[in-house]
Amino acid sequence: MATAYQRFVIAQLPKGPLALDHFRLEEGVLPPLEPGHVSVRVILISQDAANRAWLQGATYRGAVQAGEVMPSGAIAEILESRDPAHAPGDLVYGDIGWQSHAVLPGAALKPLGPHRPLSHHLSLLGVAGKTAYHGLFQAAGIHAGETLLVSAAAGSVGSLVGQVGKLKGARVIGIAGGAEKCAWVKARLGFDECLDYRDASRPLPKALAAAAPEGVDVYFDNTGGAILQAALFAMREKGRIACCGAVSMYDGAPRPGPFGVPGLIVVKRLTLQGFIVSDYAHLDADAEHELALWARQGQLHMEEEILEGLEAAPQGLIGLLAGENRGKRMIRVAADPS
Amino acid sequence: MATAYQRFVIAQLPKGPLALDHFRLEEGVLPPLEPGHVSVRVILISQDAANRAWLQGATYRGAVQAGEVMPSGAIAEILESRDPAHAPGDLVYGDIGWQSHAVLPGAALKPLGPHRPLSHHLSLLGVAGKTAYHGLFQAAGIHAGETLLVSAAAGSVGSLVGQVGKLKGARVIGIAGGAEKCAWVKARLGFDECLDYRDASRPLPKALAAAAPEGVDVYFDNTGGAILQAALFAMREKGRIACCGAVSMYDGAPRPGPFGVPGLIVVKRLTLQGFIVSDYAHLDADAEHELALWARQGQLHMEEEILEGLEAAPQGLIGLLAGENRGKRMIRVAADPS
Repeated sequence: MATAYQRFVIAQLPKGPLALDHFRLEEGVLPPLEPGHVSVRVILISQDAANRAWLQGATYRGAVQAGEVMPSGAIAEILESRDPAHAPGDLVYGDIGWQSHAVLPGAALKPLGPHRPLSHHLSLLGVAGKTAYHGLFQAAGIHAGETLLVSAAAGSVGSLVGQVGKLKGARVIGIAGGAEKCAWVKARLGFDECLDYRDASRPLPKALAAAAPEGVDVYFDNTGGAILQAALFAMREKGRIACCGAVSMYDGAPRPGPFGVPGLIVVKRLTLQGFIVSDYAHLDADAEHELALWARQGQLHMEEEILEGLEAAPQGLIGLLAGENRGKRMIRVAADPS
Repeated sequence: MATAYQRFVIAQLPKGPLALDHFRLEEGVLPPLEPGHVSVRVILISQDAANRAWLQGATYRGAVQAGEVMPSGAIAEILESRDPAHAPGDLVYGDIGWQSHAVLPGAALKPLGPHRPLSHHLSLLGVAGKTAYHGLFQAAGIHAGETLLVSAAAGSVGSLVGQVGKLKGARVIGIAGGAEKCAWVKARLGFDECLDYRDASRPLPKALAAAAPEGVDVYFDNTGGAILQAALFAMREKGRIACCGAVSMYDGAPRPGPFGVPGLIVVKRLTLQGFIVSDYAHLDADAEHELALWARQGQLHMEEEILEGLEAAPQGLIGLLAGENRGKRMIRVAADPS
């Protein structure tokens, strides 16, 4: 019996802010399996700011084209398999995209480990958790007693960066949008401070100078733009900046970089280290081991926000880019079988 | 008998391009020596783009104020000494500034080694040589077979960076202003290529793409601004940028940074390392040893441009900021006694 699928393809590449009409819902039935291929039923789809960056042209992955399925990491269950590495019922992770069912090469899918809840494989043990872990320890380095600043502090990566920084003895200052979100970052995630970049009565450069009078040792940058600008001026000599993303700049026309590049980099002898999570794939086992341990010990809170139904994916990503999420946003496409 | 001095003080701090009326010539006689102090006769004054940066406010050194002697490295001869570490006739280096004679604490002066010509202590073995050496080996790293790009290629630092890069087996591309200067960089300094950033018929981004079709591994940035912009787009994945200076941005109002910050840093996983020469002072002996050896072996050409007379200092620095120099510019204040 043929399996019906629903999927979102890219109707047109965005030139400005992402909108619903950049996507088109398609329906069909899965083709028969070629050797080496599997069919899957998608359970949970990850939503990440990087999804938007991929639509800007070739990055560390090839350019995404109009007409293709919108790419995204996802967890799925194997339905049928012509790949000996996968059996029906197995749970897998891969870049499956925004679709309910799909036929894919088995080699593109990775079996999931035993850790539960399943959603943690898209959050704590997924790209978000590993990005936080590798960015903090490999790209920047962090030491007890240092001052750590992290932007998008309520987001999937930032919320973990700050909590892990606290576990390592750093003083942690977050930056987020809105008083309520900032209060939550302090109360729920345990940051020492959280600064509201939208608070017009207290511009970020001033708030930062007050919160870190001796300067920032490590800045974990998820936003770029005006927040990176403020951070550059707040850095201590020999400070390190982990350049993880630029969510403030994905959705619109290219803009110049911050003032103080390269002047402040020279004068303060800063290190800026760009990275993506796969640069440190050889250390993924460390990340998974430690993050899972800390979560089991109750030392890490992994906030998750699960939207219901594949049809929620476009608006979910648009809202994420506007900063409406707390923690890790994902889309539930089918019930959790585990 | 009292010793007469001439010196340039800062009449007013520049707010825009540096001009002659930012300096004022003063004359007087040296005061008597306090214990621990020496009097000196200045022989050669170094001219560096960094001199201009110091006038912009506090950097890695305290802010320079109007009324102070214009600071600069210089070589001098001890006249009288009340510091047992220095004897009359000794040759010393220090931050002496734009003056013909001075009284200084002996502790601020460093004896010169035996290497001659004397001028090499301001060029090859001075801040320029050490900046090139440490920046290339410590801040960036360079390996045989890599493509090395350096801006201000005809300048005191850039001219050495490229030559040392060639000695280490890199393919070296310079950037300089003007066809004649670029021809000289290739013919005299042995760079593989030199691109003229002023050539309107061949914009730098295009020229760079043609000269480095597979991208740049290491960019040694002396300029910032539009040249850093072009370099960011030309970098290979995992490329390294040594942020040494921003001569294109010292002389005028603050400007935003390049497009692609931080986006390209993330996507290409670049490392930007700001540095100043004293960060690697513990390795100065290596720099002096190797640079002197290469020069003696005829493997390094140290271009020097010596302007005559203390009164040449203001226009000399203004011209250097406009890029009129080749190699290391300095000011001869008194005849070489050695």
